[in-house]
Amino acid sequence: MAGATHFLTPEGNASIVDDCLYGWGADMLVVYLRCDPDRLQALLPPDLKVADGLCMAYIGAFQSASEDRPDALLLNPAGAVYNEAALSIACTYGDRKGYFPAFVWVDKEWSLIRGWLNGYPKKIGSITLARPHSYNPVTGGGLRVGAVAGGICSRHGFTLMRLGLTVDRAGDPSDLMSRPATFGHRHWPALHPSQTAVSELVEVNRTDLKVGDVWVGEPFFELGNAPDEGLDYFREHEVIGGVTYSYGFRIGGATRLDKVER
Amino acid sequence: MAGATHFLTPEGNASIVDDCLYGWGADMLVVYLRCDPDRLQALLPPDLKVADGLCMAYIGAFQSASEDRPDALLLNPAGAVYNEAALSIACTYGDRKGYFPAFVWVDKEWSLIRGWLNGYPKKIGSITLARPHSYNPVTGGGLRVGAVAGGICSRHGFTLMRLGLTVDRAGDPSDLMSRPATFGHRHWPALHPSQTAVSELVEVNRTDLKVGDVWVGEPFFELGNAPDEGLDYFREHEVIGGVTYSYGFRIGGATRLDKVER
Amino acid sequence: MAGATHFLTPEGNASIVDDCLYGWGADMLVVYLRCDPDRLQALLPPDLKVADGLCMAYIGAFQSASEDRPDALLLNPAGAVYNEAALSIACTYGDRKGYFPAFVWVDKEWSLIRGWLNGYPKKIGSITLARPHSYNPVTGGGLRVGAVAGGICSRHGFTLMRLGLTVDRAGDPSDLMSRPATFGHRHWPALHPSQTAVSELVEVNRTDLKVGDVWVGEPFFELGNAPDEGLDYFREHEVIGGVTYSYGFRIGGATRLDKVER
Amino acid sequence: MAGATHFLTPEGNASIVDDCLYGWGADMLVVYLRCDPDRLQALLPPDLKVADGLCMAYIGAFQSASEDRPDALLLNPAGAVYNEAALSIACTYGDRKGYFPAFVWVDKEWSLIRGWLNGYPKKIGSITLARPHSYNPVTGGGLRVGAVAGGICSRHGFTLMRLGLTVDRAGDPSDLMSRPATFGHRHWPALHPSQTAVSELVEVNRTDLKVGDVWVGEPFFELGNAPDEGLDYFREHEVIGGVTYSYGFRIGGATRLDKVER
Repeated sequence: MAGATHFLTPEGNASIVDDCLYGWGADMLVVYLRCDPDRLQALLPPDLKVADGLCMAYIGAFQSASEDRPDALLLNPAGAVYNEAALSIACTYGDRKGYFPAFVWVDKEWSLIRGWLNGYPKKIGSITLARPHSYNPVTGGGLRVGAVAGGICSRHGFTLMRLGLTVDRAGDPSDLMSRPATFGHRHWPALHPSQTAVSELVEVNRTDLKVGDVWVGEPFFELGNAPDEGLDYFREHEVIGGVTYSYGFRIGGATRLDKVER
Repeated sequence: MAGATHFLTPEGNASIVDDCLYGWGADMLVVYLRCDPDRLQALLPPDLKVADGLCMAYIGAFQSASEDRPDALLLNPAGAVYNEAALSIACTYGDRKGYFPAFVWVDKEWSLIRGWLNGYPKKIGSITLARPHSYNPVTGGGLRVGAVAGGICSRHGFTLMRLGLTVDRAGDPSDLMSRPATFGHRHWPALHPSQTAVSELVEVNRTDLKVGDVWVGEPFFELGNAPDEGLDYFREHEVIGGVTYSYGFRIGGATRLDKVER
Repeated sequence: MAGATHFLTPEGNASIVDDCLYGWGADMLVVYLRCDPDRLQALLPPDLKVADGLCMAYIGAFQSASEDRPDALLLNPAGAVYNEAALSIACTYGDRKGYFPAFVWVDKEWSLIRGWLNGYPKKIGSITLARPHSYNPVTGGGLRVGAVAGGICSRHGFTLMRLGLTVDRAGDPSDLMSRPATFGHRHWPALHPSQTAVSELVEVNRTDLKVGDVWVGEPFFELGNAPDEGLDYFREHEVIGGVTYSYGFRIGGATRLDKVER
Repeated sequence: MAGATHFLTPEGNASIVDDCLYGWGADMLVVYLRCDPDRLQALLPPDLKVADGLCMAYIGAFQSASEDRPDALLLNPAGAVYNEAALSIACTYGDRKGYFPAFVWVDKEWSLIRGWLNGYPKKIGSITLARPHSYNPVTGGGLRVGAVAGGICSRHGFTLMRLGLTVDRAGDPSDLMSRPATFGHRHWPALHPSQTAVSELVEVNRTDLKVGDVWVGEPFFELGNAPDEGLDYFREHEVIGGVTYSYGFRIGGATRLDKVER
């Protein structure tokens, strides 16, 4: 049980994270932004270099399952689905191009802990993604030209961001501003001098990526305000595109690149 | 604004319900039960007669839109999606066959109010439906033979019911134990002798029903307990089938059948 | 069971509202506002006349119990406590001075239904009130000169309002801008011509009012925005005072004053 | 910012935890249990030895504030209050007597993270504590002989535990089965061989403890079931007492006692 987390029991079933690979499937609403590169650099761990200011704001509805318990959703459905919102920064580690998810909010703590262990900075938020259902006669069915989708994320009662899309054409995976790597920061500080701290730059080990059902359109984006967030780093922005799609992948931990000195 | 509800403003946009037809699309997980008809009869309004004990327990993920604001999900996504769980009783009104949804829980109050106005008895619960996402490599994609789905509903911290399905074959709409009518009870009591009360048996005006993506399998069902619910009316039950599917429809109010004297 | 609501069962325990008097105790944070009387008048039912623009914004933590089941909190604690936020308008009915709670948000549906039945327009929101706890050594104990309190209400991810107070003196009940009556609007529309609608102006039958632990201070107030609310009616405002206190009372229904024609 | 956590920004205000001492005030409902010592030992980190089977089940309403931002509740009230439920085991570290909180649930993620950093195993749950409000005329005011209190904790839709108390006498701090130390387990596993793991036994540095408003009575306790919890370790139990009270304290991190090898 090397990778087991609280609650630690002999059986291991009360651990928040299964100690094995996980698979994900998700429906995504993404708005691409161009922000101020100098401001963004301040959010990156040392050794990550900001790209040209490209950022990705997204809200997604996720379903995840571990290879050890692929059928867990039968008896524990709330342990299998969650919503996620994020502001992610295009950057490089040496020659390696990727994104660093600076601010991520999810609505389940097991996604938060799994995220922190893999280097994703996550908090808990209240998150909704709405896309038209294929069978709804009033929306004219599901995604198609003219369809709309929307998402919203709040925390502690403060609206953090709103996303929207009005579809104007069918797309394909090349419409995504993808970058091969996802970097992370495994950061676990000490609250007392006797404790051991961890602070490691990592690259997430994501495989089996498959993207589809891509629709491109007119984006809507609005950034909120909160006293305990850093949203102002994305305050100056140009909205440069929007897309909704589905995708899936596996993650098998994250490989350490560097120790982070702060 | 004859059909507007609180909050009443001149613009009408703060009303919980738009005064027009709505359309729905939903993903459903249904377990069919056979319960004690005599016990069930006690839950039906006068003039509805229990059928043979057939009941439908379901958990569904719904997306709804009004004909006046079909694109509302773009700017108000949390006003467009909700989850619903229910225990519904097969019954007849004269020769007309239908279901009466005795106990319904939803996770948005606008669905509760729209429901009460149309005769659906609803409370707020915490509800999750999980079905495998088509792009998740660990679940082997979405629904197919061998796939599983699960749902759970709780309220006030009490588990009310759990549903599950292990798919063993593709199905079609004939696998649903459908009945043409949905009956309801518009019940709005007086809390003071000077007030006006309403208590009306109705039939919901549902049209444009379309069902698809039907999968049939081995059901799982577990009923919980709570001090402020009537779950014991379904305590004795035989589990007789399970199905997951998608469907859509329109509802344009509900037509009064009778005044209910209690 | 004349006053029972859904879910209707022979035992009556699944009704959202007990058919009897209720008692309340609450901790309140109130900010008094002066708004535009002409704008406010548009939110009042006919026969209520706006006063001088005085409004009350509040966020409170409530505990309620029915006379039939005063000990219900032992076995069903989530059925006994809720949070409430409101924007309430000073007005008169003839010579009778009172408040009309135009917009109220609560975080339990049983408070919403009990409210609608008594004429309080309520929606569900996410609401927090924070006051310093008497035993917290870092806040220097509980309420006292220099203490702070705060509240926030959101719905559908949109911040609706924020309240705050920095205490500068102990107060007494005369520091509240109280008015004897609370008016309400029992409004239950028809969604189909065959249905019966109810729309009645009422006065809430509140008795046994007791106020104490009053602290007066510097108020903080911020109004948010949401596409499905009418907050702009309070947009122009002057903040004229703030107070935090505890109070208790009984409510035994609401007496009909008028039928409302809209 | 040695103790800052995600989200890491130059200003530090987006960190989940302030890097300084915190103070707490709380209202508590505690039921004492006697469980099987051999079963309990399996939940303790090495070097902690189970006492005589004494356990403490509690549900509490907490208000916390950091010494750096004691007034944070004014502008961010949802960052200042949370609810917590726990099952805690009486144990010893050498001669030092204490409790090890084996399973803790809270309803805010900042309490979860602050807890994990100090060695408290925490998950997110849905938690309610209800005690009679002093001003409620129907409950006869607040705590007194004959008053009742209740609490409930659920997660993922599963009821985990219910607590209750019927007060039969006023008490004092000696009615608590207190033990001087709170032990914890700072456990932060590696999900990849290249990562650094942390696993440390700690003692929480709690000071300035003050207890009051103690009421003793007849306890109620019911343990639930969930597929992803370890509740069966407390299944066999004798209920030996119940109490409700208020208390406050400071915590300044946790001191490492041992490295834990598992």
